[in-house]
Amino acid sequence: MTEPTWMYENFEPAGSAIGYRVTRKLDEVQSPFQKIEIYESTDWGNLMLIDGAMMLTARDNFLYHEMMSHPALFTHADPKRVVIIGGGDCGTLREVLRHPGVENAVQCDIDEQVTRMAEKYFPELCESNDDPRAQLLFDDGIAYMANCAPGSVDIVIVDSTDPVGPAEGLFNKAFYESCFRALKDDGILVQQSESPLVLLDLIREMRGEMGKAGFTAFKTLPFPQPCYPTGWWSCTLAKKSGDFHFRKVDARAKKFETLYYSADTHHAALTLPPFVAAALEK
Amino acid sequence: MTEPTWMYENFEPAGSAIGYRVTRKLDEVQSPFQKIEIYESTDWGNLMLIDGAMMLTARDNFLYHEMMSHPALFTHADPKRVVIIGGGDCGTLREVLRHPGVENAVQCDIDEQVTRMAEKYFPELCESNDDPRAQLLFDDGIAYMANCAPGSVDIVIVDSTDPVGPAEGLFNKAFYESCFRALKDDGILVQQSESPLVLLDLIREMRGEMGKAGFTAFKTLPFPQPCYPTGWWSCTLAKKSGDFHFRKVDARAKKFETLYYSADTHHAALTLPPFVAAALEK
Repeated sequence: MTEPTWMYENFEPAGSAIGYRVTRKLDEVQSPFQKIEIYESTDWGNLMLIDGAMMLTARDNFLYHEMMSHPALFTHADPKRVVIIGGGDCGTLREVLRHPGVENAVQCDIDEQVTRMAEKYFPELCESNDDPRAQLLFDDGIAYMANCAPGSVDIVIVDSTDPVGPAEGLFNKAFYESCFRALKDDGILVQQSESPLVLLDLIREMRGEMGKAGFTAFKTLPFPQPCYPTGWWSCTLAKKSGDFHFRKVDARAKKFETLYYSADTHHAALTLPPFVAAALEK
Repeated sequence: MTEPTWMYENFEPAGSAIGYRVTRKLDEVQSPFQKIEIYESTDWGNLMLIDGAMMLTARDNFLYHEMMSHPALFTHADPKRVVIIGGGDCGTLREVLRHPGVENAVQCDIDEQVTRMAEKYFPELCESNDDPRAQLLFDDGIAYMANCAPGSVDIVIVDSTDPVGPAEGLFNKAFYESCFRALKDDGILVQQSESPLVLLDLIREMRGEMGKAGFTAFKTLPFPQPCYPTGWWSCTLAKKSGDFHFRKVDARAKKFETLYYSADTHHAALTLPPFVAAALEK
Protein backbone atom coordinates (compact mmCIF):
# COMPACT_ATOMS: atom_id res chain seq x y z
CA MET A 1 0.00 0.00 0.00
CA THR A 2 1.23 3.49 -0.68
CA GLU A 3 -1.82 5.53 0.35
CA PRO A 4 -3.12 5.00 3.87
CA THR A 5 -6.30 2.95 3.91
CA TRP A 6 -8.86 2.05 6.57
CA MET A 7 -9.08 -1.43 8.03
CA TYR A 8 -11.97 -2.57 10.25
CA GLU A 9 -12.70 -5.36 12.69
CA ASN A 10 -16.39 -6.19 12.79
CA PHE A 11 -17.21 -7.60 16.22
CA GLU A 12 -20.23 -9.76 15.43
CA PRO A 13 -21.42 -10.52 19.01
CA ALA A 14 -21.87 -6.79 19.74
CA GLY A 15 -22.73 -5.44 16.28
CA SER A 16 -19.97 -2.85 16.61
CA ALA A 17 -16.63 -2.34 14.88
CA ILE A 18 -13.25 -0.77 15.50
CA GLY A 19 -10.93 0.41 12.75
CA TYR A 20 -7.56 1.95 12.04
CA ARG A 21 -5.90 3.90 9.27
CA VAL A 22 -3.04 1.70 8.12
CA THR A 23 -0.16 2.32 5.77
CA ARG A 24 0.93 -1.24 4.98
CA LYS A 25 0.92 -4.85 6.02
CA LEU A 26 4.30 -5.69 7.53
CA ASP A 27 3.94 -9.42 8.00
CA GLU A 28 1.58 -12.36 8.06
CA VAL A 29 2.00 -15.91 9.30
CA GLN A 30 -0.38 -18.82 9.50
CA SER A 31 0.65 -20.75 12.61
CA PRO A 32 -0.77 -24.20 13.44
CA PHE A 33 -3.30 -22.36 15.62
CA GLN A 34 -4.22 -19.06 14.01
CA LYS A 35 -3.41 -16.38 11.48
CA ILE A 36 -1.24 -13.55 12.82
CA GLU A 37 -1.00 -10.28 10.89
CA ILE A 38 1.06 -7.18 11.56
CA TYR A 39 0.14 -3.76 10.13
CA GLU A 40 1.75 -0.37 10.33
CA SER A 41 -0.74 2.38 11.20
CA THR A 42 -0.63 6.15 10.83
CA ASP A 43 -1.39 6.97 14.48
CA TRP A 44 -1.23 3.83 16.61
CA GLY A 45 2.16 2.37 15.75
CA ASN A 46 2.23 -1.30 14.77
CA LEU A 47 -0.92 -3.41 15.10
CA MET A 48 -1.22 -7.15 15.69
CA LEU A 49 -4.33 -9.04 14.56
CA ILE A 50 -5.09 -12.68 15.28
CA ASP A 51 -7.68 -14.31 13.03
CA GLY A 52 -8.82 -10.83 12.05
CA ALA A 53 -9.32 -9.63 15.64
CA MET A 54 -7.29 -6.69 16.91
CA MET A 55 -4.91 -7.91 19.62
CA LEU A 56 -2.80 -4.88 20.34
CA THR A 57 -1.52 -1.56 19.12
CA ALA A 58 1.82 -0.06 20.08
CA ARG A 59 0.01 3.04 21.36
CA ASP A 60 -2.64 1.72 23.70
CA ASN A 61 -1.53 -1.75 24.89
CA PHE A 62 -0.19 -0.23 28.13
CA LEU A 63 -3.76 0.05 29.39
CA TYR A 64 -4.42 -3.66 29.10
CA HIS A 65 -1.01 -4.92 30.20
CA GLU A 66 -0.87 -2.71 33.28
CA MET A 67 -4.40 -3.63 34.35
CA MET A 68 -3.88 -7.37 33.76
CA SER A 69 -0.90 -7.41 36.12
CA HIS A 70 -0.61 -4.71 38.78
CA PRO A 71 -4.07 -4.95 40.40
CA ALA A 72 -3.54 -8.67 41.04
CA LEU A 73 0.08 -8.27 42.16
CA PHE A 74 -0.78 -5.41 44.52
CA THR A 75 -3.66 -7.43 45.94
CA HIS A 76 -1.67 -10.58 46.73
CA ALA A 77 0.28 -10.15 50.00
CA ASP A 78 3.64 -11.31 48.61
CA PRO A 79 3.56 -12.65 45.04
CA LYS A 80 6.67 -14.68 44.22
CA ARG A 81 5.55 -17.23 41.63
CA VAL A 82 3.38 -16.04 38.75
CA VAL A 83 2.02 -18.01 35.80
CA ILE A 84 0.72 -16.26 32.67
CA ILE A 85 -1.47 -18.38 30.43
CA GLY A 86 -1.49 -16.90 26.94
CA GLY A 87 0.16 -13.49 26.93
CA GLY A 88 2.40 -14.38 23.99
CA ASP A 89 3.09 -10.75 23.16
CA CYS A 90 5.09 -10.65 26.44
CA GLY A 91 3.64 -7.30 27.58
CA THR A 92 2.01 -8.76 30.69
CA LEU A 93 5.24 -10.61 31.52
CA ARG A 94 7.15 -7.34 31.34
CA GLU A 95 4.76 -5.69 33.80
CA VAL A 96 4.86 -8.66 36.19
CA LEU A 97 8.65 -8.55 36.28
CA ARG A 98 8.62 -4.91 37.32
CA HIS A 99 7.73 -6.23 40.79
CA PRO A 100 11.06 -6.95 42.50
CA GLY A 101 9.50 -9.55 44.81
CA VAL A 102 8.58 -11.83 41.92
CA GLU A 103 11.05 -14.71 41.82
CA ASN A 104 9.67 -16.66 38.90
CA ALA A 105 7.26 -15.83 36.07
CA VAL A 106 6.20 -18.52 33.62
CA GLN A 107 4.53 -17.47 30.38
CA CYS A 108 2.79 -20.36 28.67
CA ASP A 109 1.34 -19.50 25.26
CA ILE A 110 0.31 -22.22 22.85
CA ASP A 111 1.56 -20.28 19.84
CA GLU A 112 5.27 -19.52 19.59
CA GLN A 113 4.63 -17.41 16.51
CA VAL A 114 2.87 -14.75 18.59
CA THR A 115 6.04 -14.22 20.59
CA ARG A 116 8.25 -14.28 17.49
CA MET A 117 6.10 -11.58 15.93
CA ALA A 118 6.12 -9.54 19.14
CA GLU A 119 9.91 -9.73 19.35
CA LYS A 120 10.13 -8.38 15.83
CA TYR A 121 7.36 -5.76 15.76
CA PHE A 122 6.81 -4.87 19.45
CA PRO A 123 10.34 -5.22 20.88
CA GLU A 124 9.48 -2.89 23.77
CA LEU A 125 7.03 -5.50 25.08
CA CYS A 126 9.74 -8.17 25.02
CA GLU A 127 12.43 -6.25 26.83
CA SER A 128 12.15 -8.47 29.94
CA ASN A 129 12.18 -11.79 28.09
CA ASP A 130 15.82 -12.31 29.01
CA ASP A 131 15.21 -11.60 32.69
CA PRO A 132 16.58 -14.66 34.55
CA ARG A 133 13.25 -14.87 36.41
CA ALA A 134 11.31 -15.29 33.16
CA GLN A 135 10.48 -18.66 31.63
CA LEU A 136 8.83 -18.73 28.21
CA LEU A 137 6.97 -21.92 27.33
CA PHE A 138 5.13 -22.63 24.11
CA ASP A 139 2.63 -25.22 25.13
CA ASP A 140 -1.03 -25.85 25.88
CA GLY A 141 -1.99 -23.65 28.85
CA ILE A 142 -4.83 -25.96 29.84
CA ALA A 143 -2.44 -28.91 30.15
CA TYR A 144 0.16 -26.75 31.87
CA MET A 145 -2.26 -25.73 34.61
CA ALA A 146 -3.60 -29.29 34.96
CA ASN A 147 -0.05 -30.58 35.53
CA CYS A 148 1.11 -27.75 37.79
CA ALA A 149 2.23 -28.86 41.27
CA PRO A 150 -0.64 -28.26 43.71
CA GLY A 151 -0.26 -25.16 45.88
CA SER A 152 2.79 -23.95 43.99
CA VAL A 153 1.62 -20.67 42.41
CA ASP A 154 0.76 -17.26 43.89
CA ILE A 155 -0.96 -15.71 40.87
CA VAL A 156 -2.35 -17.10 37.62
CA ILE A 157 -2.95 -14.51 34.90
CA VAL A 158 -5.13 -15.65 32.00
CA ASP A 159 -4.21 -13.27 29.18
CA SER A 160 -6.04 -14.88 26.30
CA THR A 161 -7.96 -14.10 23.15
CA ASP A 162 -11.78 -14.16 23.11
CA PRO A 163 -13.48 -17.36 24.26
CA VAL A 164 -13.61 -18.86 20.77
CA GLY A 165 -10.94 -20.92 19.02
CA PRO A 166 -7.77 -21.81 20.99
CA ALA A 167 -8.91 -19.84 24.07
CA GLU A 168 -12.33 -21.43 24.44
CA GLY A 169 -11.13 -23.94 27.04
CA LEU A 170 -9.84 -21.14 29.29
CA PHE A 171 -13.32 -20.01 30.32
CA ASN A 172 -14.81 -23.04 32.06
CA LYS A 173 -14.97 -24.87 35.39
CA ALA A 174 -12.46 -27.59 34.43
CA PHE A 175 -9.74 -25.04 33.69
CA TYR A 176 -10.57 -22.99 36.78
CA GLU A 177 -10.31 -26.16 38.91
CA SER A 178 -6.76 -26.64 37.62
CA CYS A 179 -5.95 -23.04 38.52
CA PHE A 180 -7.52 -23.47 41.96
CA ARG A 181 -5.43 -26.57 42.65
CA ALA A 182 -2.19 -24.98 41.42
CA LEU A 183 -2.65 -21.86 43.53
CA LYS A 184 -1.49 -21.55 47.13
CA ASP A 185 -4.23 -20.93 49.69
CA ASP A 186 -3.92 -17.15 49.36
CA GLY A 187 -3.58 -17.34 45.59
CA ILE A 188 -5.30 -15.11 43.05
CA LEU A 189 -6.56 -15.86 39.56
CA VAL A 190 -7.02 -12.93 37.16
CA GLN A 191 -8.49 -13.18 33.68
CA GLN A 192 -9.33 -10.72 30.91
CA SER A 193 -13.12 -10.57 30.98
CA GLU A 194 -14.24 -8.69 27.87
CA SER A 195 -16.49 -5.63 27.64
CA PRO A 196 -18.49 -4.64 30.73
CA LEU A 197 -20.99 -2.89 28.46
CA VAL A 198 -21.95 -5.60 25.98
CA LEU A 199 -20.62 -8.84 27.47
CA LEU A 200 -21.95 -8.71 31.02
CA ASP A 201 -23.47 -12.17 30.60
CA LEU A 202 -20.05 -13.58 29.83
CA ILE A 203 -18.53 -11.95 32.92
CA ARG A 204 -21.35 -13.28 35.08
CA GLU A 205 -20.96 -16.80 33.66
CA MET A 206 -17.19 -16.66 34.09
CA ARG A 207 -17.58 -15.70 37.74
CA GLY A 208 -20.14 -18.47 38.13
CA GLU A 209 -17.73 -21.08 36.73
CA MET A 210 -14.92 -19.75 38.94
CA GLY A 211 -17.24 -20.09 41.93
CA LYS A 212 -18.08 -23.69 41.02
CA ALA A 213 -14.33 -24.40 40.95
CA GLY A 214 -14.05 -23.19 44.54
CA PHE A 215 -13.05 -19.54 44.30
CA THR A 216 -14.59 -17.47 47.09
CA ALA A 217 -14.44 -13.80 46.10
CA PHE A 218 -14.54 -11.90 42.82
CA LYS A 219 -13.73 -8.41 41.63
CA THR A 220 -14.27 -7.16 38.09
CA LEU A 221 -12.23 -4.05 37.27
CA PRO A 222 -13.22 -2.00 34.20
CA PHE A 223 -10.67 0.01 32.23
CA PRO A 224 -10.50 1.78 28.86
CA GLN A 225 -9.01 -0.18 25.96
CA PRO A 226 -9.64 1.53 22.62
CA CYS A 227 -8.46 -1.36 20.43
CA TYR A 228 -11.01 -3.84 21.85
CA PRO A 229 -14.75 -3.86 21.05
CA THR A 230 -16.61 -0.89 22.63
CA GLY A 231 -13.30 0.56 23.86
CA TRP A 232 -14.18 -0.50 27.40
CA TRP A 233 -12.71 -3.67 28.82
CA SER A 234 -12.28 -5.49 32.13
CA CYS A 235 -10.29 -8.01 34.10
CA THR A 236 -11.79 -10.25 36.77
CA LEU A 237 -9.92 -11.30 39.90
CA ALA A 238 -10.86 -14.43 41.86
CA LYS A 239 -9.50 -15.36 45.28
CA LYS A 240 -8.85 -18.96 46.33
CA SER A 241 -9.90 -18.23 49.93
CA GLY A 242 -10.95 -15.25 51.98
CA ASP A 243 -11.38 -11.77 50.57
CA PHE A 244 -9.18 -9.27 48.73
CA HIS A 245 -6.80 -6.90 50.49
CA PHE A 246 -5.46 -4.22 48.19
CA ARG A 247 -1.93 -3.20 49.30
CA LYS A 248 -2.61 0.45 48.55
CA VAL A 249 0.36 1.77 50.52
CA ASP A 250 2.72 -0.49 48.58
CA ALA A 251 1.11 0.46 45.28
CA ARG A 252 1.57 4.13 46.14
CA ALA A 253 5.24 3.50 46.99
CA LYS A 254 6.05 1.40 43.91
CA LYS A 255 9.45 2.10 42.42
CA PHE A 256 8.51 1.63 38.74
CA GLU A 257 6.69 3.90 36.31
CA THR A 258 3.25 3.18 34.92
CA LEU A 259 1.10 5.20 32.54
CA TYR A 260 -2.44 4.15 33.48
CA TYR A 261 -2.07 2.14 36.68
CA SER A 262 -1.69 3.89 40.02
CA ALA A 263 -2.87 3.22 43.54
CA ASP A 264 -5.68 5.68 42.80
CA THR A 265 -6.77 4.26 39.43
CA HIS A 266 -6.66 0.78 40.98
CA HIS A 267 -8.88 1.98 43.81
CA ALA A 268 -11.17 3.73 41.30
CA ALA A 269 -11.47 0.57 39.17
CA LEU A 270 -12.85 -1.27 42.20
CA THR A 271 -15.97 0.89 41.87
CA LEU A 272 -18.48 -0.65 39.51
CA PRO A 273 -21.08 1.52 37.77
CA PRO A 274 -24.58 0.71 39.05
CA PHE A 275 -25.71 -1.11 35.90
CA VAL A 276 -22.63 -3.36 35.93
CA ALA A 277 -22.96 -4.11 39.65
CA ALA A 278 -26.66 -4.92 39.21
CA ALA A 279 -25.97 -7.28 36.30
CA LEU A 280 -23.19 -9.15 38.09
CA GLU A 281 -25.28 -9.58 41.23
CA LYS A 282 -28.25 -11.05 39.35
CA MET B 1 -31.59 -2.25 3.11
CA THR B 2 -32.79 -5.73 3.83
CA GLU B 3 -29.54 -7.40 4.94
CA PRO B 4 -27.68 -5.80 7.83
CA THR B 5 -24.61 -3.91 6.66
CA TRP B 6 -21.66 -2.29 8.40
CA MET B 7 -21.31 1.48 8.59
CA TYR B 8 -18.12 3.20 9.80
CA GLU B 9 -17.08 6.62 11.02
CA ASN B 10 -13.45 7.32 10.24
CA PHE B 11 -12.10 9.75 12.82
CA GLU B 12 -9.32 11.45 10.90
CA PRO B 13 -7.57 13.30 13.77
CA ALA B 14 -6.90 10.02 15.59
CA GLY B 15 -6.59 7.59 12.68
CA SER B 16 -9.19 5.33 14.29
CA ALA B 17 -12.74 4.36 13.39
CA ILE B 18 -15.94 3.18 15.06
CA GLY B 19 -18.66 1.24 13.27
CA TYR B 20 -22.06 -0.36 13.68
CA ARG B 21 -24.08 -3.07 12.02
CA VAL B 22 -27.15 -1.28 10.72
CA THR B 23 -30.37 -2.55 9.21
CA ARG B 24 -31.67 0.59 7.49
CA LYS B 25 -31.59 4.35 7.27
CA LEU B 26 -34.70 5.71 8.97
CA ASP B 27 -34.38 9.37 8.13
CA GLU B 28 -32.14 12.12 6.82
CA VAL B 29 -32.45 15.88 6.88
CA GLN B 30 -30.12 18.63 5.72
CA SER B 31 -30.70 21.50 8.13
CA PRO B 32 -29.25 24.99 7.53
CA PHE B 33 -26.34 23.89 9.75
CA GLN B 34 -25.60 20.23 9.19
CA LYS B 35 -26.76 16.88 7.84
CA ILE B 36 -28.58 14.72 10.36
CA GLU B 37 -29.04 11.00 9.69
CA ILE B 38 -30.88 8.34 11.67
CA TYR B 39 -30.11 4.63 11.30
CA GLU B 40 -31.57 1.54 12.88
CA SER B 41 -28.90 -0.85 14.18
CA THR B 42 -28.95 -4.53 15.09
CA ASP B 43 -27.57 -4.12 18.63
CA TRP B 44 -27.45 -0.46 19.60
CA GLY B 45 -30.99 0.74 18.87
CA ASN B 46 -31.33 3.87 16.78
CA LEU B 47 -28.22 5.89 15.87
CA MET B 48 -27.94 9.62 15.14
CA LEU B 49 -25.12 10.94 12.96
CA ILE B 50 -24.35 14.59 12.30
CA ASP B 51 -22.22 15.33 9.24
CA GLY B 52 -21.17 11.68 9.29
CA ALA B 53 -20.04 11.71 12.94
CA MET B 54 -21.76 9.42 15.42
CA MET B 55 -23.68 11.52 17.93
CA LEU B 56 -25.55 8.96 19.94
CA THR B 57 -26.91 5.45 20.12
CA ALA B 58 -30.00 4.43 22.07
CA ARG B 59 -27.91 1.89 23.96
CA ASP B 60 -24.95 3.83 25.28
CA ASN B 61 -25.95 7.52 25.43
CA PHE B 62 -26.67 7.18 29.15
CA LEU B 63 -22.94 7.22 29.82
CA TYR B 64 -22.44 10.63 28.23
CA HIS B 65 -25.65 12.26 29.41
CA GLU B 66 -25.22 11.19 33.01
CA MET B 67 -21.59 12.33 33.12
CA MET B 68 -22.30 15.67 31.42
CA SER B 69 -24.85 16.58 34.09
CA HIS B 70 -24.62 14.91 37.50
CA PRO B 71 -20.95 15.56 38.37
CA ALA B 72 -21.48 19.30 37.84
CA LEU B 73 -24.84 19.38 39.61
CA PHE B 74 -23.53 17.44 42.59
CA THR B 75 -20.50 19.73 42.79
CA HIS B 76 -22.42 23.03 42.81
CA ALA B 77 -23.78 23.74 46.31
CA ASP B 78 -27.35 24.48 45.20
CA PRO B 79 -27.91 24.56 41.43
CA LYS B 80 -31.18 26.32 40.50
CA ARG B 81 -30.57 27.85 37.09
CA VAL B 82 -28.89 25.70 34.44
CA VAL B 83 -28.10 26.57 30.83
CA ILE B 84 -27.29 23.85 28.27
CA ILE B 85 -25.54 25.06 25.11
CA GLY B 86 -26.10 22.51 22.36
CA GLY B 87 -27.61 19.33 23.76
CA GLY B 88 -30.33 19.27 21.10
CA ASP B 89 -31.04 15.57 21.64
CA CYS B 90 -32.47 16.62 25.05
CA GLY B 91 -30.74 13.79 26.96
CA THR B 92 -28.68 16.14 29.11
CA LEU B 93 -31.77 18.25 29.81
CA ARG B 94 -33.59 15.16 31.04
CA GLU B 95 -30.77 14.34 33.46
CA VAL B 96 -30.55 17.94 34.73
CA LEU B 97 -34.28 17.97 35.48
CA ARG B 98 -33.97 14.87 37.64
CA HIS B 99 -32.54 17.24 40.28
CA PRO B 100 -35.57 18.56 42.19
CA GLY B 101 -33.73 21.74 43.23
CA VAL B 102 -33.36 22.91 39.64
CA GLU B 103 -35.90 25.68 39.01
CA ASN B 104 -35.08 26.52 35.42
CA ALA B 105 -33.15 24.74 32.66
CA VAL B 106 -32.60 26.45 29.33
CA GLN B 107 -31.46 24.33 26.38
CA CYS B 108 -30.11 26.46 23.55
CA ASP B 109 -29.22 24.49 20.43
CA ILE B 110 -28.68 26.24 17.12
CA ASP B 111 -30.36 23.46 15.18
CA GLU B 112 -34.05 22.75 15.81
CA GLN B 113 -33.88 19.73 13.52
CA VAL B 114 -31.71 17.85 16.03
CA THR B 115 -34.48 18.11 18.61
CA ARG B 116 -37.19 17.21 16.08
CA MET B 117 -35.24 14.08 15.15
CA ALA B 118 -34.66 13.21 18.80
CA GLU B 119 -38.39 13.56 19.56
CA LYS B 120 -39.14 11.12 16.78
CA TYR B 121 -36.34 8.56 17.11
CA PHE B 122 -35.15 8.92 20.73
CA PRO B 123 -38.41 9.81 22.53
CA GLU B 124 -37.01 8.54 25.85
CA LEU B 125 -34.46 11.37 25.80
CA CYS B 126 -37.21 13.94 25.32
CA GLU B 127 -39.51 12.82 28.09
CA SER B 128 -38.77 15.91 30.20
CA ASN B 129 -39.20 18.44 27.38
CA ASP B 130 -42.67 19.34 28.69
CA ASP B 131 -41.43 19.86 32.23
CA PRO B 132 -42.56 23.41 33.20
CA ARG B 133 -38.96 24.11 34.30
CA ALA B 134 -37.61 23.38 30.80
CA GLN B 135 -37.14 26.04 28.15
CA LEU B 136 -36.09 24.95 24.66
CA LEU B 137 -34.50 27.62 22.49
CA PHE B 138 -33.24 27.19 18.96
CA ASP B 139 -30.67 29.88 18.64
CA ASP B 140 -26.96 30.64 18.52
CA GLY B 141 -25.47 29.51 21.84
CA ILE B 142 -22.55 31.93 21.53
CA ALA B 143 -24.93 34.89 21.24
CA TYR B 144 -27.17 33.48 23.98
CA MET B 145 -24.29 33.35 26.46
CA ALA B 146 -23.02 36.77 25.40
CA ASN B 147 -26.44 38.28 26.09
CA CYS B 148 -27.14 36.39 29.32
CA ALA B 149 -27.69 38.61 32.37
CA PRO B 150 -24.44 38.75 34.38
CA GLY B 151 -24.37 36.57 37.47
CA SER B 152 -27.66 34.88 36.62
CA VAL B 153 -26.68 31.25 36.02
CA ASP B 154 -25.48 28.49 38.37
CA ILE B 155 -24.25 25.97 35.80
CA VAL B 156 -23.46 26.17 32.09
CA ILE B 157 -23.24 22.82 30.31
CA VAL B 158 -21.61 22.88 26.87
CA ASP B 159 -22.93 19.74 25.19
CA SER B 160 -21.65 20.25 21.68
CA THR B 161 -20.25 18.43 18.69
CA ASP B 162 -16.50 18.37 18.00
CA PRO B 163 -14.70 21.74 17.73
CA VAL B 164 -15.21 22.00 13.97
CA GLY B 165 -18.20 23.45 12.11
CA PRO B 166 -21.01 25.01 14.18
CA ALA B 167 -19.35 24.13 17.50
CA GLU B 168 -15.94 25.66 16.75
CA GLY B 169 -16.77 28.92 18.56
CA LEU B 170 -17.60 27.05 21.78
CA PHE B 171 -13.94 26.21 22.51
CA ASN B 172 -12.26 29.62 22.90
CA LYS B 173 -11.61 32.42 25.39
CA ALA B 174 -14.32 34.76 24.01
CA PHE B 175 -17.05 32.19 24.60
CA TYR B 176 -15.67 31.23 28.01
CA GLU B 177 -15.66 34.93 29.00
CA SER B 178 -19.38 35.07 28.22
CA CYS B 179 -19.92 31.97 30.37
CA PHE B 180 -17.81 33.47 33.16
CA ARG B 181 -19.85 36.70 33.15
CA ALA B 182 -23.19 34.87 33.04
CA LEU B 183 -22.31 32.61 35.98
CA LYS B 184 -22.85 33.53 39.61
CA ASP B 185 -19.70 33.70 41.74
CA ASP B 186 -19.96 30.05 42.73
CA GLY B 187 -20.93 29.00 39.20
CA ILE B 188 -19.60 26.00 37.29
CA LEU B 189 -18.95 25.52 33.60
CA VAL B 190 -18.82 21.96 32.24
CA GLN B 191 -17.96 20.99 28.69
CA GLN B 192 -17.50 17.75 26.79
CA SER B 193 -13.75 17.53 26.26
CA GLU B 194 -13.12 14.70 23.80
CA SER B 195 -10.86 11.67 24.21
CA PRO B 196 -8.33 11.69 27.08
CA LEU B 197 -6.22 9.22 25.12
CA VAL B 198 -5.75 10.94 21.78
CA LEU B 199 -6.90 14.53 22.33
CA LEU B 200 -5.00 15.54 25.43
CA ASP B 201 -3.66 18.64 23.67
CA LEU B 202 -7.21 19.80 23.06
CA ILE B 203 -8.13 19.32 26.71
CA ARG B 204 -5.04 21.22 27.84
CA GLU B 205 -5.77 24.07 25.41
CA MET B 206 -9.40 24.19 26.49
CA ARG B 207 -8.38 24.47 30.14
CA GLY B 208 -5.87 27.16 29.15
CA GLU B 209 -8.56 29.21 27.41
CA MET B 210 -10.92 28.76 30.35
CA GLY B 211 -8.15 30.00 32.64
CA LYS B 212 -7.59 33.09 30.48
CA ALA B 213 -11.30 33.83 30.80
CA GLY B 214 -10.95 33.88 34.58
CA PHE B 215 -11.88 30.37 35.73
CA THR B 216 -9.81 29.30 38.74
CA ALA B 217 -10.03 25.51 39.04
CA PHE B 218 -10.42 22.63 36.61
CA LYS B 219 -11.32 18.97 36.77
CA THR B 220 -11.34 16.60 33.81
CA LEU B 221 -13.40 13.47 34.41
CA PRO B 222 -12.88 10.49 32.06
CA PHE B 223 -15.66 8.02 31.30
CA PRO B 224 -16.34 5.24 28.78
CA GLN B 225 -18.36 6.19 25.68
CA PRO B 226 -18.23 3.45 23.03
CA CYS B 227 -19.84 5.51 20.24
CA TYR B 228 -17.16 8.23 20.33
CA PRO B 229 -13.61 7.89 18.97
CA THR B 230 -11.42 5.54 21.09
CA GLY B 231 -14.45 4.68 23.26
CA TRP B 232 -13.03 6.80 26.06
CA TRP B 233 -14.32 10.32 26.59
CA SER B 234 -14.26 13.12 29.13
CA CYS B 235 -15.95 16.21 30.48
CA THR B 236 -14.10 19.15 31.97
CA LEU B 237 -15.46 21.23 34.85
CA ALA B 238 -14.29 24.80 35.49
CA LYS B 239 -15.07 26.85 38.59
CA LYS B 240 -15.63 30.61 38.50
CA SER B 241 -13.99 31.08 41.91
CA GLY B 242 -12.52 28.89 44.62
CA ASP B 243 -12.24 25.15 44.38
CA PHE B 244 -14.65 22.25 43.84
CA HIS B 245 -16.62 20.65 46.65
CA PHE B 246 -18.25 17.38 45.61
CA ARG B 247 -21.51 16.89 47.57
CA LYS B 248 -20.86 13.19 47.96
CA VAL B 249 -23.43 12.67 50.72
CA ASP B 250 -26.13 14.23 48.58
CA ALA B 251 -25.07 12.20 45.54
CA ARG B 252 -25.28 9.04 47.62
CA ALA B 253 -28.78 10.02 48.83
CA LYS B 254 -30.13 11.00 45.41
CA LYS B 255 -33.73 9.95 44.80
CA PHE B 256 -33.44 9.15 41.08
CA GLU B 257 -31.98 6.16 39.26
CA THR B 258 -28.84 6.30 37.16
CA LEU B 259 -27.06 3.55 35.25
CA TYR B 260 -23.45 4.75 35.19
CA TYR B 261 -23.33 7.69 37.57
CA SER B 262 -23.10 7.15 41.31
CA ALA B 263 -21.37 8.92 44.17
CA ASP B 264 -18.66 6.27 43.82
CA THR B 265 -18.19 6.46 40.04
CA HIS B 266 -18.12 10.27 40.36
CA HIS B 267 -15.43 10.00 43.01
CA ALA B 268 -13.54 7.46 40.87
CA ALA B 269 -13.71 9.74 37.82
CA LEU B 270 -11.89 12.43 39.79
CA THR B 271 -8.81 10.19 39.68
CA LEU B 272 -6.77 10.80 36.56
CA PRO B 273 -4.43 8.11 35.21
CA PRO B 274 -0.78 9.20 35.57
CA PHE B 275 -0.25 9.84 31.85
CA VAL B 276 -3.35 12.07 31.66
CA ALA B 277 -2.43 13.99 34.80
CA ALA B 278 1.11 14.50 33.52
CA ALA B 279 -0.11 15.79 30.15
CA LEU B 280 -2.61 18.22 31.68
CA GLU B 281 -0.03 19.59 34.10
CA LYS B 282 2.54 20.28 31.36
